[in-house]
Amino acid sequence: MNGLMQDWPLLISRFIQFSEKNHTEVEIISMLPEGGMLRTNYGAVSQRSKKIAQTLSRLGIKSGDRVGTLAWNTHRHLEIWFGTSGMGAVTHTVNPRLFPEQLIYIINHAEDIVLFVDLSFVSIVQDIASQLETVKHFVIMVGPEHMPAQSSVHFLCYEELLNGENGQYSWPEFNENTASSLCYTSGTTGDPKGVLYSHRSNYLHTMSAMGKDAFNIGSLDVVMPVVPMFHANAWGIPYGTAGLGAKLVLIGPHHDAETLHNLIVDEGVTISAAVPTIWSGLLTYLEKTGKGLGKIENIIIGGSSAPRSMIKTFKDKYGVWVSHVWGMTELSPLGTVCKPNSLNSNLSGDELNNLQCMQGRGVMGIEMSIKSDTGDFLPWDGRTQGNLMSRGPWVLKQYFKSDTTALDDDMWFETGDVATINRSGYMQITDRSKDVIKSGGEWISSIDIENAALSHPAVQEAAVISHFHPKWEERPLIFVFLKEGKTLNLEDMNEHLKPLVAKWWLPNGLILIDKIPHTATGKISKKCLRKLVLDYQFPD
Amino acid sequence: MNGLMQDWPLLISRFIQFSEKNHTEVEIISMLPEGGMLRTNYGAVSQRSKKIAQTLSRLGIKSGDRVGTLAWNTHRHLEIWFGTSGMGAVTHTVNPRLFPEQLIYIINHAEDIVLFVDLSFVSIVQDIASQLETVKHFVIMVGPEHMPAQSSVHFLCYEELLNGENGQYSWPEFNENTASSLCYTSGTTGDPKGVLYSHRSNYLHTMSAMGKDAFNIGSLDVVMPVVPMFHANAWGIPYGTAGLGAKLVLIGPHHDAETLHNLIVDEGVTISAAVPTIWSGLLTYLEKTGKGLGKIENIIIGGSSAPRSMIKTFKDKYGVWVSHVWGMTELSPLGTVCKPNSLNSNLSGDELNNLQCMQGRGVMGIEMSIKSDTGDFLPWDGRTQGNLMSRGPWVLKQYFKSDTTALDDDMWFETGDVATINRSGYMQITDRSKDVIKSGGEWISSIDIENAALSHPAVQEAAVISHFHPKWEERPLIFVFLKEGKTLNLEDMNEHLKPLVAKWWLPNGLILIDKIPHTATGKISKKCLRKLVLDYQFPD
Ligand SMILES: Nc1ncnc2c1ncn2[C@@H]1O[C@H](COP(=O)(O)OP(=O)(O)OP(=O)(O)O)[C@@H](O)[C@H]1O
Ligand SMILES: Nc1ncnc2c1ncn2[C@@H]1O[C@H](COP(=O)(O)OP(=O)(O)OP(=O)(O)O)[C@@H](O)[C@H]1O
Ligand SMILES: [Mg+2]
Ligand SMILES: [Mg+2]
Repeated sequence: MNGLMQDWPLLISRFIQFSEKNHTEVEIISMLPEGGMLRTNYGAVSQRSKKIAQTLSRLGIKSGDRVGTLAWNTHRHLEIWFGTSGMGAVTHTVNPRLFPEQLIYIINHAEDIVLFVDLSFVSIVQDIASQLETVKHFVIMVGPEHMPAQSSVHFLCYEELLNGENGQYSWPEFNENTASSLCYTSGTTGDPKGVLYSHRSNYLHTMSAMGKDAFNIGSLDVVMPVVPMFHANAWGIPYGTAGLGAKLVLIGPHHDAETLHNLIVDEGVTISAAVPTIWSGLLTYLEKTGKGLGKIENIIIGGSSAPRSMIKTFKDKYGVWVSHVWGMTELSPLGTVCKPNSLNSNLSGDELNNLQCMQGRGVMGIEMSIKSDTGDFLPWDGRTQGNLMSRGPWVLKQYFKSDTTALDDDMWFETGDVATINRSGYMQITDRSKDVIKSGGEWISSIDIENAALSHPAVQEAAVISHFHPKWEERPLIFVFLKEGKTLNLEDMNEHLKPLVAKWWLPNGLILIDKIPHTATGKISKKCLRKLVLDYQFPD
Repeated sequence: MNGLMQDWPLLISRFIQFSEKNHTEVEIISMLPEGGMLRTNYGAVSQRSKKIAQTLSRLGIKSGDRVGTLAWNTHRHLEIWFGTSGMGAVTHTVNPRLFPEQLIYIINHAEDIVLFVDLSFVSIVQDIASQLETVKHFVIMVGPEHMPAQSSVHFLCYEELLNGENGQYSWPEFNENTASSLCYTSGTTGDPKGVLYSHRSNYLHTMSAMGKDAFNIGSLDVVMPVVPMFHANAWGIPYGTAGLGAKLVLIGPHHDAETLHNLIVDEGVTISAAVPTIWSGLLTYLEKTGKGLGKIENIIIGGSSAPRSMIKTFKDKYGVWVSHVWGMTELSPLGTVCKPNSLNSNLSGDELNNLQCMQGRGVMGIEMSIKSDTGDFLPWDGRTQGNLMSRGPWVLKQYFKSDTTALDDDMWFETGDVATINRSGYMQITDRSKDVIKSGGEWISSIDIENAALSHPAVQEAAVISHFHPKWEERPLIFVFLKEGKTLNLEDMNEHLKPLVAKWWLPNGLILIDKIPHTATGKISKKCLRKLVLDYQFPD
């Protein structure tokens, strides 16, 4: 027997529709790649999203077709999101920081038919356009006054397209399992893989991600996702802010600490989200300038492990709570959030810092487990490391264009991360399975060593990789990027590490490096680091 | 093209499963009808819910069968909820405060096969058992030591049933549109009508209701739903607290201000929810005793209009925020919540009080509109009154056993309430459509007059109904229940009301009354009041 409640599919258009009805005048701040800042609102963005839907229909886009974007966080990018998914097509957010070959590979693999491009990326597109096999229309996301004078590629003008439409459009109703958007993984460990979200998965993810125990976003918040809309949908934030009517600050091409800081203070940002490197840049800036953090209450850090010292500085020096989160493109992306629960709400000082260094507990809807290499469930004792598995209505089932399931027999998705889980469900990532250091059969956590190294006053950034050792098979090798004017050697480092990690974890080698290589989504690229030391041998 | 994400149906068992995995040790406090208090936790309740599922199977209950409860808020009631819905059957929460004829009608209409009964209601059941046509098994929710010595009805013992099961049970997977629970409306305006929820509708309702802009519940909260589990599922709170791992305080049969106050203080309650009469009782108690409200941050008031003076007292005297909410059984029940948004966040004093008197904005997922009697959409101008309509994935489509839709052609459900909506989406109930006062063709809001009357120092409770008037057709008649030792007449009252409401709204008659009659869910029964004055004529 079925219930007798209304049958509304969970569609992404609901969010923008809801905002048009209920939050019309709530502001959206958009930093434009062509320069300047636009103050708009949900009513306007909603209207213009409908014009995008009309434009796409006019360009021949049908349900299921892929529409690519090479764009920063702007109101136009938001309009494309809602317009494309809302009409039934698939928003494909391409990471413009990838190498040209990767861009070509991804756009061809996705078979994008329209490509929306920010002014910043026009020259990239000009270079690769001839190799994009499926793209029929290139649109530059500007008004006519900013269109390039001449170009080898035939570019359409975004604002002109919109001006050609009347906005009289009703969002269609369709099955909630319809694909809504496509995002490729960051390519940290190999080739990027496509994750094809459905309206349903995005809707459910959003509802959970906005909750008090997750991002904790409501209508009184001013939210600045520094995380790009091409990085796992800006962690789902723009859907939620539209639905809930929170003021949204879109930073455009600006990722420098000064601009971020100005926006935080001027716009009264209460919640912001980004990968650790962004925050370390901001902290350096604050230290230099002696400035504060305005009204910010909650800084969401994920994508890579949030360093212990960073969490501590935000708390002790700026009174700002860090929500350490873990997720992945395959999880839409939110998996876990770290905050105290009623059983450990009295922690403070180092104990609280320890807690916050964990990646946290599964958000409502996400199941987690750790399994051994032979597929057995491992205990939640906070010590046993295992392959982190996940299940839930916004977890991937199969990669785009793959013809095999990505799940094991119990429907668990293997995340590729190695972690511990304690009895209260707090998960801590110790490594990627590809980065694990197996020393004489025992596992050493590179993330733990990095965290400990970062608290050394001479260290700006540190990365630990596994490296061949004739006796132990693998031993930790540490790369250090020093603060200005500082020096350091292996002995100093290990002196510092001794009280912080197990003795047998101490690195066997230290390499000073000018710059730690990062991926296009701001993660340390251990792939690159490993390439640097192919011939390296540990000192005796 | 469909997305490639995992297909997990949204089931109520997810909440309790999640709590068993992640919040095992988080406390549930249960005040027992047989006396005393039990401190248990989600792990134990989850285990015992599985045993309920096993018991029900043993008693022959199948998917879709109705399982009735006549019970207070206790851990056992919670176990029955999760056990019954979890196994695929339908939890039917019967309001034990109804008259015996209503109980008989509802239980027969629902065709309950098993009836779980709290010790408090055993004698009622003994009286009506012979007229319950479908119930095969009566279970008293106690251990063997509290079973009645002898009885005309064959009663099973709850704890004995559980002891007969091993709890080795996996929650089945099934379609999320399957019926999960059945609840009848309060019968304020006519016969109670059955609302048949699905797993999906309850799940989606829960996710939205827990949000920051709604009940704002997270794992650090201690939540005490005073609203009974038989009143629109305790507003969905127990599902959410299980999923999120918030400590839950279940008050059993105790609705007296002293017990509530003790629980609030002793258990560190941060959020509580109830109808206005409960809170007016508590405020009287606090005033008398000079006591405070412990850690409470947020008091959720709905079911009837939260009086202006009550909202103000909580804020000014106790520093507690009142979340004024509106909902109905047909909406699972949450429709709107009142809190400031970014456009009016600077309000204070009377302006804030005015805002909080509104029933608020639709929670994410709920669409609202007001229509004229001829079905035209009315403007959102904060002045125009119209029939309040609602749509959304947790809004009723059709009443249980009805064979006609409850929706109009546009899929809107007419709520039976009359309201205004302002341009920011804030809705204010002015009346039930059945209670509306039409004076010479113009509508007068009885709720507004009641609110104004309540601020008179002599008034404990007030109710305004429409009454026949030879010239104006209808005029307001006010019933007043005085505070101890006070007196009042129509002139005094109207003197007080003059600055607060339109002059032509002033009541034409006042009747002092010993007690304002309330329904079984604590609403003023205007049906009863109208019966009292069938022959009444307004003074000239
Ligand atoms: N808080 C965190 N702490 C540690 N690692 C994290 C955290 N958040 C995310 N990660 C890492 O990021 C990964 C998810 O990143 P993303 O989906 O962007 O692609 P990627 O895994 O880096 O790239 P690819 O899968 O193509 O190699 C996780 O599997 C995890 O390794
Ligand atoms: N905050 C509120 N302010 C005013 N009225 C409210 C509020 N919350 C709920 N109500 C009233 O309660 C009604 C819903 O109550 P419920 O579903 O318990 O049954 P009922 O409407 O009282 O009974 P019946 O439908 O059987 O007559 C709403 O339609 C509305 O009239
Ligand atoms: Mg990955
Ligand atoms: Mg009703």
